Amino acid sequence: MKTINILLLGYGNVGKAFVRLIHDKQDLCLNRHRLLLRFGYVLNSRGALRLSRESEGKRFLADSVSGLKLELHPGWESGKHFRDVLECRELDVLVDCTPSNIWDGEPAIGYTRRALERRLHVVTSNKGPLVVDFDGIRRKAAENRVSLGMSGATAAALPTLDVALRSTAGAEISRVEGILNGTSNYILTRMNEGIKYSDALREARESGIAEPDPSKDVEGWDTAAKLLIITNAVFETAFTLEDIHVEGITGIPLPLMKKTKGREKKIKLIGRCFHDGEEIKLETGLSLLDPSHPLYWVDGTQKGITFFTDTMDMITVSGGKSNPLGAAAAMLKDIINIYRLD
Amino acid sequence: MKTINILLLGYGNVGKAFVRLIHDKQDLCLNRHRLLLRFGYVLNSRGALRLSRESEGKRFLADSVSGLKLELHPGWESGKHFRDVLECRELDVLVDCTPSNIWDGEPAIGYTRRALERRLHVVTSNKGPLVVDFDGIRRKAAENRVSLGMSGATAAALPTLDVALRSTAGAEISRVEGILNGTSNYILTRMNEGIKYSDALREARESGIAEPDPSKDVEGWDTAAKLLIITNAVFETAFTLEDIHVEGITGIPLPLMKKTKGREKKIKLIGRCFHDGEEIKLETGLSLLDPSHPLYWVDGTQKGITFFTDTMDMITVSGGKSNPLGAAAAMLKDIINIYRLD
Repeated sequence: MKTINILLLGYGNVGKAFVRLIHDKQDLCLNRHRLLLRFGYVLNSRGALRLSRESEGKRFLADSVSGLKLELHPGWESGKHFRDVLECRELDVLVDCTPSNIWDGEPAIGYTRRALERRLHVVTSNKGPLVVDFDGIRRKAAENRVSLGMSGATAAALPTLDVALRSTAGAEISRVEGILNGTSNYILTRMNEGIKYSDALREARESGIAEPDPSKDVEGWDTAAKLLIITNAVFETAFTLEDIHVEGITGIPLPLMKKTKGREKKIKLIGRCFHDGEEIKLETGLSLLDPSHPLYWVDGTQKGITFFTDTMDMITVSGGKSNPLGAAAAMLKDIINIYRLD
Repeated sequence: MKTINILLLGYGNVGKAFVRLIHDKQDLCLNRHRLLLRFGYVLNSRGALRLSRESEGKRFLADSVSGLKLELHPGWESGKHFRDVLECRELDVLVDCTPSNIWDGEPAIGYTRRALERRLHVVTSNKGPLVVDFDGIRRKAAENRVSLGMSGATAAALPTLDVALRSTAGAEISRVEGILNGTSNYILTRMNEGIKYSDALREARESGIAEPDPSKDVEGWDTAAKLLIITNAVFETAFTLEDIHVEGITGIPLPLMKKTKGREKKIKLIGRCFHDGEEIKLETGLSLLDPSHPLYWVDGTQKGITFFTDTMDMITVSGGKSNPLGAAAAMLKDIINIYRLD
């Protein structure tokens, strides 16, 4: 049995879901993978909860189900900062559940770099650092011989990088196409059914599918960010957001919308990268798909991704929960796969 | 760089495709994965080709493209048997490309066991040994601390076990449903379009989709064999073919066929395992799917599989080439993943 000490960064919706998930899955991790997962520290913007003794860790997990605030636990240290916490020698993995800032990656990008330098594995649902400095972070991980778990930042429970890096190993991927954002796909699905954009957006907001500010989703930036990370991981490139032509679903031209009427076609927001002669090109934009395309069938809040390969043909994955539990499950998967022996 | 010495068993369609693939992918394996893949021995039922020197190996790879018979290579040893070859200390992986005998697993089952005892990793497209004695073979691999690459025997280029064992690690799978046989799915797709069974089968034969004797495909046994291996791998069970209720596509009741008429429903041959209270049940048979089922859309010679999980929702993979190249690519993938360091 191996004990894994987790430094959890961020205790919002995803962080809380992750703690509850570890609570629920402790026996499975122990019995099936011989891993004892425990929290060493839990940080939010106001301070840190230190869980040194086993009894404290157990109590924290039990209390997480009832939703007790971090500040009310006995080990709470108000104002404690990330750099102080990192001095603790018993930490193995940084789990970053802070919100994605895809414009400058802050503040998570600094935490990520420092954690890698201290030889912690990093498992993250935060796209920011990977979008802003993929190449630098990958190199830092390699230099320090630690792993980067990026599933939580690349469509979470939908296995995008697993398929791209492991299931197609030995094949050449020439093209990747993905429906990578659940909110915009939901809105487009409703529009393909004849509903107006504004009504579909309101519906998505009212049902909790869209965030209060859905701009990153509907303007294509969330799709572009995931596409960027996937492309850099698959092709070992160092693209940044500036290299992507980004289009969202906010201004669908009427002639395009009309092309779906009465025909078997659907408009989808596709993130796409492909070899164009010598270069790799990236773009996020609207595409008119017909039923022969495997992503035509990915509707509602579902996501999906298709890899075009030379020796294995097309491989498409779809589904995977798009909520905090799905993100948490993707991070737990990455931790198990970092430590697994088989 | 690591040199991997392969013992190739079987030089039919899949074996030849595997050799050509290694020829084509040597640079990729070397540059991306630091693996030099070479053949130490190639065996068929008439003898063995020994490739001791590097120049011999290179020539064999080059000649494989032109289709030169094994017997015409300089290192050919007529009548040489598997047990003699296994004494060669420089072998690392057995790649088994012999035809599947799912009834008693012979002769491959003996070869598989002996290779594992000699601490060779085993990568296989042969379902026979895994269907007949999954538990024994898994134990033997574990005892000898070597890996079993089963992708070639579980729908090949379609990543079934990768998703089940790695991409859903930490989640509980409650149910697996798959379209696991391309020939029967092609015939059913044509029948769903209104063609009679006998005409669809003739069409499949004429276009080379169906084998001359397609009985294992159309009677459901190929689906059942793959389902069995996947189930035993996912749930760590020791089921055998006798535990599966097997139904094929040869006798579709007219009332069932009529239910697809004018409605949005399709008949599919589904291999399925699920928790039924306390027990895990396995069955292969006809199902009427509606468009809300992710496998509804898997048509023609395509395959697909859906995993129902607790924390990640449903995850479906579809596509993947169904031919000797696809099987070869799946085995190369397994070899890379056995030796990869990241």
